Amino acid sequence: MKSRVKKVLNSLQKEVDAILIWNAGRPDPNFFYVTDYTSGLFEGSIAILHRDDELDVFTSPLEEELARRADANVRVLNSRDDAELASALNDSLSNASSVGVNEDALSHSAYTKLCRLLKDKSITDVSSAFARARWVKDPDERERIAKAAAITSGALERVPQLVKEGMTEKALQAEIEYWFVRAGADGPAFSSIVAFGENSALPHYFSGDRTLAAGDTILCDVGARYKLYCADMTRTFFFRRANEYQREMYAKVKEAQDAAFSLLKDGAGSASVHKAAEDIIDNSSFRGGFIHGLGHSLGIEVHDGYGMGKKTKEKLVAGAVVTVEPGIYVPGKGGVRIEDDVAITQDSFEFLTKAERELMVI
Amino acid sequence: MKSRVKKVLNSLQKEVDAILIWNAGRPDPNFFYVTDYTSGLFEGSIAILHRDDELDVFTSPLEEELARRADANVRVLNSRDDAELASALNDSLSNASSVGVNEDALSHSAYTKLCRLLKDKSITDVSSAFARARWVKDPDERERIAKAAAITSGALERVPQLVKEGMTEKALQAEIEYWFVRAGADGPAFSSIVAFGENSALPHYFSGDRTLAAGDTILCDVGARYKLYCADMTRTFFFRRANEYQREMYAKVKEAQDAAFSLLKDGAGSASVHKAAEDIIDNSSFRGGFIHGLGHSLGIEVHDGYGMGKKTKEKLVAGAVVTVEPGIYVPGKGGVRIEDDVAITQDSFEFLTKAERELMVI
Repeated sequence: MKSRVKKVLNSLQKEVDAILIWNAGRPDPNFFYVTDYTSGLFEGSIAILHRDDELDVFTSPLEEELARRADANVRVLNSRDDAELASALNDSLSNASSVGVNEDALSHSAYTKLCRLLKDKSITDVSSAFARARWVKDPDERERIAKAAAITSGALERVPQLVKEGMTEKALQAEIEYWFVRAGADGPAFSSIVAFGENSALPHYFSGDRTLAAGDTILCDVGARYKLYCADMTRTFFFRRANEYQREMYAKVKEAQDAAFSLLKDGAGSASVHKAAEDIIDNSSFRGGFIHGLGHSLGIEVHDGYGMGKKTKEKLVAGAVVTVEPGIYVPGKGGVRIEDDVAITQDSFEFLTKAERELMVI
Repeated sequence: MKSRVKKVLNSLQKEVDAILIWNAGRPDPNFFYVTDYTSGLFEGSIAILHRDDELDVFTSPLEEELARRADANVRVLNSRDDAELASALNDSLSNASSVGVNEDALSHSAYTKLCRLLKDKSITDVSSAFARARWVKDPDERERIAKAAAITSGALERVPQLVKEGMTEKALQAEIEYWFVRAGADGPAFSSIVAFGENSALPHYFSGDRTLAAGDTILCDVGARYKLYCADMTRTFFFRRANEYQREMYAKVKEAQDAAFSLLKDGAGSASVHKAAEDIIDNSSFRGGFIHGLGHSLGIEVHDGYGMGKKTKEKLVAGAVVTVEPGIYVPGKGGVRIEDDVAITQDSFEFLTKAERELMVI
């Protein structure tokens, strides 16, 4: 997409003559950001962004047909020979003496090889340009995240009808992800966390065979991916009954999320938003129970480049999309997390996720 | 797992005093291979393999509980400060003067940082030791791949009952993945390819809104992930009827797969197995229609380190698990692929995937 090529180039802090993205070993999400391919793996493929906004794509015969769907100059590399690759690179970069790469995604072995193939050119890190370009979403990105968030909200709103005594975490995961794909999602954006009872105290637990019993906490941290864009949402329910301790924990997390919401707007410091939520929890009997950052930017990656935490330095900006996800975790007992996806506006924010946030006994 | 730490160390081609795996930016599957964690993301976490088979794991407070499930010395890093990280690294590596890393997964920026933090140590690439260690599966890996393959086979065997005129590719994908998770899988191991009609000619197409009509090819290339291990399987069906052209294409792909099967055994050259399949296709009217390698090793990654193609040099070895997946693709018309997962034995091979391979009109 020419508009994204332009945006990345405009986000450069030091000038380079061209930018090269190489899916060596593992794909770089920035390859998909600039090409907007929603079908295909593009292993080993390369995208080159030129100063005149032209985009070159090198790919294998295997994905030629899909590659031609982009507004790009496609060149098919028939072999995996270094000689053919060097020739294609040097053709495309004949007028460039400096080339920017994303050193955060490019493996060291690919970097070394690139230096060898482009031996008379200087190679510079431009990883921050990609992060900055992706920080404020364009309308198409915003729409896809909103769709992913709507699908995810729909799945979580169905949880009360889905749960049954004795069902496993995995069985509930299956129902949620089934909903995602039937509603048009690519699939889950990350490993679904469906945690019952004491497992809810483990923030990154993956669903297993624990069965559901009355009095259990049900924590679901799930997200659909829609045309490559991610949602990331958490709701915590209580099965059949909730005791005083669970109710207090839930109320405190919700209060922390509300405190964060009240500060969200263009220009707000991410660390101060985190602190507002953390203070609510640390000034309660659950002091120390909030053991992660408040949230992160969201886009073509679940963790899309920026965090909101104790020491993060970024200011929020209108058009950014972030998660707001305070939690309390008490090992052996359980945890509560409430997580929504929001788009920052000039004066406040808009919810992209939409589902009941009040405590629900189901 | 001590046995895997030992296996990686035994696979070294040049000696190092310790091996370091760092999930900087993106996780390295080798981290999960050596720790055997099946729950948790472990972003930014580090594993250090020592010559006496001891395993150190550095992680954040967020995943401390999950980290302690491994047979490893766990150290919690409370900050994201370089100073704390440098101190932990230098404690663990106090007796090491050479440190091996996986340069194929470690980003260039992480590599640069590591060189700075370990400034008096030499850093060496040991990526090939990981690939070699993972080439022959241990009994636990074999069992998990077999389970993933059985779940996938079960899903593909249900396709004839699932398809209906007018259903979308996405709807069939939803049913297949729903089966995976209900049968105990973590989820899909990769983006499911469900391609109807002309879309079957695109080897890496992702499912979309194309609806099913009589006479369509139905190509399903899908795989479950079970406790991190992957299956990867393809079946091609025909809806309601198959014409002569489709039947010939199918017969040729099956003949190519059979030709490859007849050569599989310990010591067989991967390129010659590929060639046997390719020759069948190239000596038919579908000459040039087989545009990818015959297969690849399979394990904790879908593409687990080795390929079987025109120019691959590896010999197959008993205990390795590979895919065998010839295909014919005719742009605009359609394609056929048949893919099974097999374990190489001394004299032959064993099927891990089990589903009808004969042409099916459904």
